[in-house]
Amino acid sequence: MRFAEASAVWQVDEETWKAEVQPGWDIFGVSNGGYLMSIAARAMSEASDGRLPVSVNAQFIRPVSAGPVEVSVGTVKVGKSFSTLRATLSSDLDSLVLLGSFASPGSLRDDVTYMTGEPPDTPSPDQCVRALPGVDAPLPPPLMDKFEERIHPEDASALEGRPTGVARVRGWFRFLDDEPLDPFGLLLAADAFPPAVFNANLPLAWTPTIEMTTHIRATPATEWLNCSFNTRFVTGGFLEEDGEIWDEEGRLVALSRQLALAPR
Amino acid sequence: MRFAEASAVWQVDEETWKAEVQPGWDIFGVSNGGYLMSIAARAMSEASDGRLPVSVNAQFIRPVSAGPVEVSVGTVKVGKSFSTLRATLSSDLDSLVLLGSFASPGSLRDDVTYMTGEPPDTPSPDQCVRALPGVDAPLPPPLMDKFEERIHPEDASALEGRPTGVARVRGWFRFLDDEPLDPFGLLLAADAFPPAVFNANLPLAWTPTIEMTTHIRATPATEWLNCSFNTRFVTGGFLEEDGEIWDEEGRLVALSRQLALAPR
Repeated sequence: MRFAEASAVWQVDEETWKAEVQPGWDIFGVSNGGYLMSIAARAMSEASDGRLPVSVNAQFIRPVSAGPVEVSVGTVKVGKSFSTLRATLSSDLDSLVLLGSFASPGSLRDDVTYMTGEPPDTPSPDQCVRALPGVDAPLPPPLMDKFEERIHPEDASALEGRPTGVARVRGWFRFLDDEPLDPFGLLLAADAFPPAVFNANLPLAWTPTIEMTTHIRATPATEWLNCSFNTRFVTGGFLEEDGEIWDEEGRLVALSRQLALAPR
Repeated sequence: MRFAEASAVWQVDEETWKAEVQPGWDIFGVSNGGYLMSIAARAMSEASDGRLPVSVNAQFIRPVSAGPVEVSVGTVKVGKSFSTLRATLSSDLDSLVLLGSFASPGSLRDDVTYMTGEPPDTPSPDQCVRALPGVDAPLPPPLMDKFEERIHPEDASALEGRPTGVARVRGWFRFLDDEPLDPFGLLLAADAFPPAVFNANLPLAWTPTIEMTTHIRATPATEWLNCSFNTRFVTGGFLEEDGEIWDEEGRLVALSRQLALAPR
């Protein structure tokens, strides 16, 4: 099933959308956070007459399993260029609460007026390590067959239980079957790689996301996304993971940051 | 007036707090965003029986001027360690909407298990440039007399209209009269420096914040905060500003990121 179908929403009434969280878009039964954000953002986008996400913040309060969910959306403000919306994604109980800014497609510019930092220097996809669901191992999780992910050879050993010591994961992402990447796909891609902290020499344990924000800077113009995820600080029981997503033409398309519980 | 007093809230009913946005905590009449976040977070903290902010996201939808405001707070979930809350700060109209995670003070740890990156190598406060409100100039704004801010000599020339070319501002922050810094003060400090982009060679213009997230990692144990703010990407009409805040003992106390409109 293509991502667009797996993340589709249907309007029920003025403030309510329903969706079907699909099996397989999960890690050991817990649906992927970026996938759930993309479902909620589709409802928020429809509620704002098709404006597209510029920034989406989600607080993850309960895990979601495959099955029907409801997204209730409230409009905070409709401005000339931006709309601000709130949303709640619920299965039996509220599971995600979100705030987001959405902009009309025509108001987005494509200029670059200042840039330090550049795309990661990752070898081409065919020189990287394909992340495929493990047959005998818990990693990578089944989710990895829903898209194509190729990990930088220097960062890939965490997949086999040998962390590099540097909490970083770089790699390429694309959808299967030439499905194009839109802003909703970027919300997924920003949370679709193995946690960067798996490459730190720390216990390999679940790192539940408390909250995540993704900024959409541009629509990708190429097939592959060049992604980099870094954790710099595991302190006080928390860690941040910062993501940068570029297209193949060197266009910055998204920045993400999540706060998660440190492995222990 | 001390920060604690300027950001105080009074409960009106189970879901409503009132506050008085003070004059002078503004930039040309528009109240500072971090100051407003601290007011809302105090109401959210009281609504969660004194749990303290771990992560606060605010969407800035309308400017706020000095005067009475109301904060309505909703509890999304009360967990064993974390509470998730939503809030709206309104004067006549809704001006800020927020989501936040709050934790019981006892559940916060002070360990460091992984760290790359270190505090900025800023000279001691007495070797830095004091940012004081301009007498004849628009910069620095009047807000700067509400706390003490000392800018890294290499980054300070933006205050005089001579950008360095690198969108970075490093410096020290403390409250006046030995007022201690708590998590609410960190929400202010994360938005209290001149925009890093003022040091880029771009038009010196208003950069309205669309949304901002601050993560509180620890309570500062020292008087001064060692702060660094960086903008790496001004693209598509947007910029991010990332903040790192440390105490004098090298403890990371907060990370922040905001999305703002690029100057034009």
